[in-house]
Amino acid sequence: MLYFLDLIGVAVFAISGALAGLNRGLDLFGVTVLAAVTAIGGGTLRDVLLHRDPIFWVGAPSYIYTILAAVILALFGHSFFADLEQPMLIADALGLGLFAISGAQVAEEQKRAAVVVVLMGTITGVAGGVIRDLLSGVVPVLLRRDIYASAAAIGVVVYLISQALRLRRTSAFIVSASTIVLLRLIALRYGLQLPNAKSLGF
Amino acid sequence: MLYFLDLIGVAVFAISGALAGLNRGLDLFGVTVLAAVTAIGGGTLRDVLLHRDPIFWVGAPSYIYTILAAVILALFGHSFFADLEQPMLIADALGLGLFAISGAQVAEEQKRAAVVVVLMGTITGVAGGVIRDLLSGVVPVLLRRDIYASAAAIGVVVYLISQALRLRRTSAFIVSASTIVLLRLIALRYGLQLPNAKSLGF
Amino acid sequence: MLYFLDLIGVAVFAISGALAGLNRGLDLFGVTVLAAVTAIGGGTLRDVLLHRDPIFWVGAPSYIYTILAAVILALFGHSFFADLEQPMLIADALGLGLFAISGAQVAEEQKRAAVVVVLMGTITGVAGGVIRDLLSGVVPVLLRRDIYASAAAIGVVVYLISQALRLRRTSAFIVSASTIVLLRLIALRYGLQLPNAKSLGF
Repeated sequence: MLYFLDLIGVAVFAISGALAGLNRGLDLFGVTVLAAVTAIGGGTLRDVLLHRDPIFWVGAPSYIYTILAAVILALFGHSFFADLEQPMLIADALGLGLFAISGAQVAEEQKRAAVVVVLMGTITGVAGGVIRDLLSGVVPVLLRRDIYASAAAIGVVVYLISQALRLRRTSAFIVSASTIVLLRLIALRYGLQLPNAKSLGF
Repeated sequence: MLYFLDLIGVAVFAISGALAGLNRGLDLFGVTVLAAVTAIGGGTLRDVLLHRDPIFWVGAPSYIYTILAAVILALFGHSFFADLEQPMLIADALGLGLFAISGAQVAEEQKRAAVVVVLMGTITGVAGGVIRDLLSGVVPVLLRRDIYASAAAIGVVVYLISQALRLRRTSAFIVSASTIVLLRLIALRYGLQLPNAKSLGF
Repeated sequence: MLYFLDLIGVAVFAISGALAGLNRGLDLFGVTVLAAVTAIGGGTLRDVLLHRDPIFWVGAPSYIYTILAAVILALFGHSFFADLEQPMLIADALGLGLFAISGAQVAEEQKRAAVVVVLMGTITGVAGGVIRDLLSGVVPVLLRRDIYASAAAIGVVVYLISQALRLRRTSAFIVSASTIVLLRLIALRYGLQLPNAKSLGF
């Protein structure tokens, strides 16, 4: 189950990374690199931090084939869209939701403290995008005033509350991952931002 | 003991990271991210490179609570200072000293070669700040002509010499960590720099 | 054997990193940092991703001494060259070839899938240079339209084919590492680039 959801997360994040690369006119290898980094960066960091052996994609080459398929899909698909911005952001929101909760579940299985579960879910969700941004020389999404990582953190909290309320694991997954995707899309649609210190009067 | 010193190091580095974030007008989440990255980046890299399981903060959520407390402290505290530069640099020097020596001690416990102990202490001291700088799009402190990482390296050498001279471990810690803090503050005060190849006549 | 080739790879990459640092007028510590990061970055990431304990240079300080020697060599050597660009690029091509195939062999010994072997070889070859570029604030070589990482990937494929054709391991190493070095130097000499999506008509 986790495996399957990770695979979908990898696919949508790979598409989002590939579209970002195509948008910047990179060569096909660069596009594939950005796709791969976005897709497996977060889960790789999660596995390294939790000492999971093997790292998910090292033990299962299907993840890499998924990335290659996603790149081809993005290549053929992107000419159908006038503007790549929109589909890229939606794929990205979906990946964020899937990865954050699956990352949280991995930490949960190791019986980590709640605050560590929240952190690990957030890291799994955002690290791939952060590495993509660092490699591209873009200010990382983490430090822009977007509601992005905060959406992931809130979603994991919702997941933990759902578990405490004894929702079934699958239901908790769906509820919390959807929360993240919705929060992210609403924030994008209405340009919502988190307050900074000045606007709070500090 | 190591645990307690790590906790103080985490607190001062978190404050330094949070002040850097406030300085740049980031939102509260971004401020917390910079605080966390600065505070646990170096120790995390040390633990990954030395295969310590679990990573220090994954096994002990108190580190994360310390970071959250430090962020709140920085938030309320920073309005008391006209200029954030000074307190940030002092907190940072303190964190550098604590982390470099505690990182060296971890490598020492694994009976690594002296040169590996020096490297690991330096990495523990500087990696958090380097990741903070990378995320912020600033030229990393490592490559500015400041005496920063070199102060950490010298301090660890002082620590190893103190041990060879049979100083007690605590005394060696205090002597060498103070060396780093002093070197760093003196370098800042007098604008000292290391020579580059040209100025050495190469 | 792997140990010896890794050592040569570390030396040439350290020289390439040191020359890059000298080129940018960094202080001697900064030059050493760039040399070290370029030299051990790729192998470190490989060892972390494959959970090898200890990380190659943590268990064998000779790597660090090699880096220090390479920095001294670069320091005395660079005044003999009117222009550092050329020797730096050749050292880099050599390091790329050695590291990519030795990285592939490590993954091969763990009996990983072919596609994981290719990825791991490529990562071992390029990650050091990517970290060097990130620290230097340069667009990473990975995303420039150079034939760089793609040369590493092709070389590892040649290695796997040589193995399938039952070439002896040493011969396969020489053939495939040479392929990478040649591809890289030819690409540099003639300014070859990979196509991007637009030029392929997507």
